[in-house]
Amino acid sequence: MNPLESLFDSLRNAQTRLALQNRQEKDAALRGMMNAIDADREEILRANAADVERARMRGMKDALIDRLSLNDKRINDIIAGIAVVIRQEDPIGKVRAGWTLPNGLFVEQITVPLGVAAIIYESRPNVTADAVSLAYKAGCAILLRGSSAALESNRTLVRAIKAGLAAGGGLADAVGLADSGSRDEIDLILAARGRIDVVLPRGGRDLIRRVVDNARIPVIETGEGNCHIYVEPGAGMAGAVDIIENAKLQKPGTCNAVETLLVHRHAAAELLPLLAVRFAGRVELRCDGPSRAAILAGCGAAFPPGLILKDAVPEDWETEFLDYILAVKIVDSVEEAIEHINRYGTRHSEAILTGDIRAAETFCRRVDAACVYTNASIRFTDGGEFGFGAELGISTQKFHARGPMGLEALTTIKYRITGSGQIRS
Amino acid sequence: MNPLESLFDSLRNAQTRLALQNRQEKDAALRGMMNAIDADREEILRANAADVERARMRGMKDALIDRLSLNDKRINDIIAGIAVVIRQEDPIGKVRAGWTLPNGLFVEQITVPLGVAAIIYESRPNVTADAVSLAYKAGCAILLRGSSAALESNRTLVRAIKAGLAAGGGLADAVGLADSGSRDEIDLILAARGRIDVVLPRGGRDLIRRVVDNARIPVIETGEGNCHIYVEPGAGMAGAVDIIENAKLQKPGTCNAVETLLVHRHAAAELLPLLAVRFAGRVELRCDGPSRAAILAGCGAAFPPGLILKDAVPEDWETEFLDYILAVKIVDSVEEAIEHINRYGTRHSEAILTGDIRAAETFCRRVDAACVYTNASIRFTDGGEFGFGAELGISTQKFHARGPMGLEALTTIKYRITGSGQIRS
Repeated sequence: MNPLESLFDSLRNAQTRLALQNRQEKDAALRGMMNAIDADREEILRANAADVERARMRGMKDALIDRLSLNDKRINDIIAGIAVVIRQEDPIGKVRAGWTLPNGLFVEQITVPLGVAAIIYESRPNVTADAVSLAYKAGCAILLRGSSAALESNRTLVRAIKAGLAAGGGLADAVGLADSGSRDEIDLILAARGRIDVVLPRGGRDLIRRVVDNARIPVIETGEGNCHIYVEPGAGMAGAVDIIENAKLQKPGTCNAVETLLVHRHAAAELLPLLAVRFAGRVELRCDGPSRAAILAGCGAAFPPGLILKDAVPEDWETEFLDYILAVKIVDSVEEAIEHINRYGTRHSEAILTGDIRAAETFCRRVDAACVYTNASIRFTDGGEFGFGAELGISTQKFHARGPMGLEALTTIKYRITGSGQIRS
Repeated sequence: MNPLESLFDSLRNAQTRLALQNRQEKDAALRGMMNAIDADREEILRANAADVERARMRGMKDALIDRLSLNDKRINDIIAGIAVVIRQEDPIGKVRAGWTLPNGLFVEQITVPLGVAAIIYESRPNVTADAVSLAYKAGCAILLRGSSAALESNRTLVRAIKAGLAAGGGLADAVGLADSGSRDEIDLILAARGRIDVVLPRGGRDLIRRVVDNARIPVIETGEGNCHIYVEPGAGMAGAVDIIENAKLQKPGTCNAVETLLVHRHAAAELLPLLAVRFAGRVELRCDGPSRAAILAGCGAAFPPGLILKDAVPEDWETEFLDYILAVKIVDSVEEAIEHINRYGTRHSEAILTGDIRAAETFCRRVDAACVYTNASIRFTDGGEFGFGAELGISTQKFHARGPMGLEALTTIKYRITGSGQIRS
């Protein structure tokens, strides 16, 4: 038997026991985990420094190095995230619905853990602690398959996590790390029907595609975000520019950054010159004809120094740039904006900026996406921002879980039926 | 383009419009459908009689002929089912949760339709109407792929349904029938990523396996039921025999029939001779050594005429007989019963018959199944019995939907976030 398969079995065994633990027991174990990460901080940072050093020598790009790196603040954030998970209500054992049948049978729908989850993720080591804390609180065992670049960080973190769970009276075996570094591990996980109940890929497009295409077990697709902001004439243009800037620049490489700006024809003259000034030298604009004309007309002789203005090509509407690039298009109505979004969007996060309550209502009802915003930055689509303490990722599918995934995504239900001898006639 | 692919597109278009209909509009369309089935009753029965005649000539077995056959009572049941669906609350547009973030952003989780569903089912034509009424009420379009044996019945029913929906002011295009009779249809459905949001196989084991193994779109697995009843000493043996008889004999070919009886050692002497008398000439018992000994000792010279008693072989514990056969095994404790069930069961429906509240509690918490019963027949695992009016099938998976599937199984959520200019810092 492959060592990973015996790990599947031990996770299943631990999960069966974990499913029976009450909130006090689970929270005590999570407090143990929190303390252990704090106590082993130096060791974790040393292991991470070794990973970072190795990655640098292999020529990893700066943005990825940053994603891989831990420091004192990031360890503090990890610990704070666990504390929020501890404060969350227990998602297990809730009666979601209940009723009595005409024959007297009493039927209840009760939340139970989903089972054994696997997460396959790229370099961020904070995902390791986030995923464990959410899974443990939801009564699920978790198999972690991080990237080889973060192997030492993850090994050290998982050692601390398991020791901490045990010190808190919990079940260290509910956490497993797939650390052979071999690609076969992923194939074994994706084929583990009946042994792993769900797999969550978290990372770049290629990873997610590979998992979705090959999994024989349920997958929750995450991450791809071709997101839009649509601006109406009554939006208040200063605030609109702030929101667009935040959605593009606060972290351009993330799935909830804005990629295409849709502007109502009657908002273009006011909004676009302001935006051009704000983005000059910072963000390349890929404009359709009318939006380009609005910028040129609005700026006139005062063309902002450093502004890069290109003609949009059709592929721009369907591209998740993850970069300092924004596509811009003029539309004639909220309906046209909705149609564009439902055609090109990835059902992630979409926003309308408007003063018109009817337009907001239409937009929110008709845009098909996990998160639909009125008058706010789409960068809030995040488990931490939503108050979940951590997140397992952002589901872009409709099946089972949608949007930022916290505890609820790792639960399912069981019907409990209580009778007094009823038979079916 | 294959005609089925243009059907996919027209279903998607209709679903986009159906998603925006309110309860009044949807219920009016369903009333139209109900009236049309009633009005076209003779035509439907004639088409069904032709299907039945053809099936008989091809040598279809009686049980399957029965499943294929419609009559006035069954049409009445179909109509009554639609009436119950009409009376159900609208599952769409419910605020499932909502909260305000520290920055003032208001976050709501709102139920929305899952999208376009496909159902691939064997001969029962009543599934046609059940699936349409649930899907329509949930704002979903539905693609029906029935068996070739029921082709004329389904064509006539779907004609009535579409005319009825239209007459009620609804969207006939939200319903599609794949009726070329070709097996390629199934492959096209299973490959329709992004065009069909979920596929529900409903029928025999082979159909379900084929769908699960080949689908590139989300599947809800249904149906397989290796179900158990466990009897404790204080259960009240007369009532226990009634429940076991009901669970085995009320409809032996269904997934919620009992297949293995587990008897506590101290209940065997009282229960098993009673059961042997009740099942003599009707159900074959496949016993382990101790249960066989209890029957022989209890019946003594009065061995019930016609009783078939065989030795159980290991495969019997994992077999869904769907027949007049019951496996019987003695256990020493509720824990041993739970262990047996969690090892051999298919996570469908499981019951404990007991007078001991602690045993019931342990059983309900630790048995991993969609439906766990105390002191009642497991035959109640059914959307109609649960009060849903109809069912899309009984999910034996944990992902997205579990147990009898009514309206809720065809919904998902959308986050609606309302702000006043918030940006992420």
